[in-house]
Amino acid sequence: MNNPIPTTPPSGFRDHLPDACARRARAIETISSVYRSFGFQQIATSAVEDLAVLLGKGGGENEKLIFKIMKRGEKLDAAKAAGEELADAGLRFDLTLPLARFYAKHGSTLPHPLKAFNIGPVWRAERAQKGRYREFYQCDVDVIGSEDVGAEIDVISAILAAFDALGVPGVQVVLNDRSYVYEALAHAGVPEDKRQAACVIIDKLDKVERPKIIQELSETIGSPSTAQLELTLLRNEPRRDIFTASGDLVGQKQFAKLDAVVAAVGAERARVDPSLMRGFDYYTGPVFEFRHPGFSGSIGGGGRYDHLTEKFGTRQVPACGGSIGFERLLLILEGEGAQAEAGADVCMLVFSEETRGKALEAARFLRARGVSVDVFPGSGKLKNQFKYADQKRAAWAALIGPDEAASHVIKLKNLKTGQEILKPIEEAANLFGAERANSPV
Amino acid sequence: MNNPIPTTPPSGFRDHLPDACARRARAIETISSVYRSFGFQQIATSAVEDLAVLLGKGGGENEKLIFKIMKRGEKLDAAKAAGEELADAGLRFDLTLPLARFYAKHGSTLPHPLKAFNIGPVWRAERAQKGRYREFYQCDVDVIGSEDVGAEIDVISAILAAFDALGVPGVQVVLNDRSYVYEALAHAGVPEDKRQAACVIIDKLDKVERPKIIQELSETIGSPSTAQLELTLLRNEPRRDIFTASGDLVGQKQFAKLDAVVAAVGAERARVDPSLMRGFDYYTGPVFEFRHPGFSGSIGGGGRYDHLTEKFGTRQVPACGGSIGFERLLLILEGEGAQAEAGADVCMLVFSEETRGKALEAARFLRARGVSVDVFPGSGKLKNQFKYADQKRAAWAALIGPDEAASHVIKLKNLKTGQEILKPIEEAANLFGAERANSPV
Repeated sequence: MNNPIPTTPPSGFRDHLPDACARRARAIETISSVYRSFGFQQIATSAVEDLAVLLGKGGGENEKLIFKIMKRGEKLDAAKAAGEELADAGLRFDLTLPLARFYAKHGSTLPHPLKAFNIGPVWRAERAQKGRYREFYQCDVDVIGSEDVGAEIDVISAILAAFDALGVPGVQVVLNDRSYVYEALAHAGVPEDKRQAACVIIDKLDKVERPKIIQELSETIGSPSTAQLELTLLRNEPRRDIFTASGDLVGQKQFAKLDAVVAAVGAERARVDPSLMRGFDYYTGPVFEFRHPGFSGSIGGGGRYDHLTEKFGTRQVPACGGSIGFERLLLILEGEGAQAEAGADVCMLVFSEETRGKALEAARFLRARGVSVDVFPGSGKLKNQFKYADQKRAAWAALIGPDEAASHVIKLKNLKTGQEILKPIEEAANLFGAERANSPV
Repeated sequence: MNNPIPTTPPSGFRDHLPDACARRARAIETISSVYRSFGFQQIATSAVEDLAVLLGKGGGENEKLIFKIMKRGEKLDAAKAAGEELADAGLRFDLTLPLARFYAKHGSTLPHPLKAFNIGPVWRAERAQKGRYREFYQCDVDVIGSEDVGAEIDVISAILAAFDALGVPGVQVVLNDRSYVYEALAHAGVPEDKRQAACVIIDKLDKVERPKIIQELSETIGSPSTAQLELTLLRNEPRRDIFTASGDLVGQKQFAKLDAVVAAVGAERARVDPSLMRGFDYYTGPVFEFRHPGFSGSIGGGGRYDHLTEKFGTRQVPACGGSIGFERLLLILEGEGAQAEAGADVCMLVFSEETRGKALEAARFLRARGVSVDVFPGSGKLKNQFKYADQKRAAWAALIGPDEAASHVIKLKNLKTGQEILKPIEEAANLFGAERANSPV
């Protein structure tokens, strides 16, 4: 068939069908409502950012993540002629960097500290694979302007409460402070120029088998240092004494903060994991990750990023934020037996074009009383219309043919039980109301 | 100051501050909920589409609207070397074209006819100016697979109901059928090669002064034809007899459809405007536009596009859709005295780090009872914390200092009246509940 125009979205991008879409919308509403009930205020930033914002001063590893947007018109021609960069903007790859820009611009006009949340899509030009998309949602919640552990507690509590409200029980938060990792590396005698490489290996602990990690570490930093790290980083509890030994009070203070979070959230929902690093390099100390028993890897995470606003020429502002991995959340919600979405209370069939007026009048009457009414857009064969009502999962089908119109009644069919009844339309409104009151939705 | 990284979004893009963001989110929820109650199902498509989808077979005038996304890696290098197109994708510029692609891909698995809605941002590389943005939301609602006027009625009724639910009264729908414009042009003796140009001029009627339109028309198609058009197109009512004269039954049928819409919606909310064209060239007959008495230009529109899915190699499928101009809607909502957003029920102040535990415990207790609680993320000076509670527009401030903790009470201050009370925390929960029940929100 001659069909040069594709009907699928680009690789890594998705369409969302009605059931999935309703689930996504409902999850976003639940998360927003929980974040709001914690006093976080919703903000939004543009999908497109200047390339200078996305690349920062250095560019670096983020550059290959960015979907770049081409200059237009004369600017594009000039750039081509001069052999310069052809793009002037790009799609945001996370919501944290835009938030830092937003705060640098608007922070002084907003409550202080700023408790903000932002829910929306981000885009990454990574290789698309099963479960990893190039367009996906993030649900960020941040406190900007507070160095107190209250910020971490607020962010983590709000995210845990959101998981609870979503009906995803058993989510735990795993905490660490990056300074512990650095201290453990020093304690194990890892030379400074090898520490970055060691961090990259350790960061893979939740994805790669432990023996393989040990082997990679041995090859990179030698067996003696690796053996030391097995006693400090690669265990379930941090060895706090390595800070005491070095007399580092900062380290003690960091542990006190982590302990405060565990106390606030509850020991059954929080634990310290000495090897936790988190990927982003803007984190400055505390980091955390949300884990679900039925899911390997994390379903959310965050940390403190006290220097990000400095990029925008703003004085140093302490900040802490976290995010729900929305696409992974949806996998869990779908895995736990996603229910088909309920349809309208009633699907109004249309006997003929002549009786459409009666059908519309009844629909208007019922809607004014809070009943949702899906009017069949055409008319014609009732068999097709009943099929439509079934496909749309309406609770009832309704019909006003010439006979019903003459007797001022409406014919109703319960699509679950098959029961048929004739009623004056005024009474029908109560029927749907009762139906809804008993429904589990 | 040395600050090379911009803190503003690119030209034509916007940040949304908390109050605006809350208004936008609430409007979207209202619109979604009305669309849903009419039996429309939400769908979503990707922000990024293949360039071939956006350009279609011809490209044409849409091409300059598109924010193009550059190829990446080897593909980019190869395209540069070969002097080929450097972009392979772009940001969608409307939601109708993606819907047609979506339907070509998924339509056979969905209820028939498909009643769908899609709310989301679109991007247009137009010159940014006051009130016109390069990133803006559309709220589309469509019926695909029905050629009956029931589709137009459904779409238009849902949009009018959405405006009602949003508290924007007085919105009217203006209707026309493009075939009337073409017939009137033929009737006025406008030669075929001038008709397109005449349409472009007539389409500006809602933006340009009438005398200027007449003058432009005279220059393009001559005074006699223009005089004829004044009697047919440039008046308040269509001259139906021009169809009768030509014996065109199709035209009579189109008027019957428009009449059916007016009858269904009510003559006080709908009228036929013989000159209405609408911009998009994919409309095939009926077109409509939503107008608000306090706003020049339209605040929404739509029409029938019976051939759009053919682009994607699908058989011809009748379709009809409309859209709310979301950014204009927001201007109206803001113009009608936008209220500041209410904050949390209570802002929990933190006397000291030592009493944070008590504050968090109280917050947890209240939240479990449906009270929204904004905990101050830091501690320290109470004056700053009261200022924060005011900025956040909390209804009450609450404090558990050492004295209150010892007496198992919570100190509450009504931030509107200044009234202070001490209460056991169990009783406080009822207080906020009562407060909310009386609030107008």
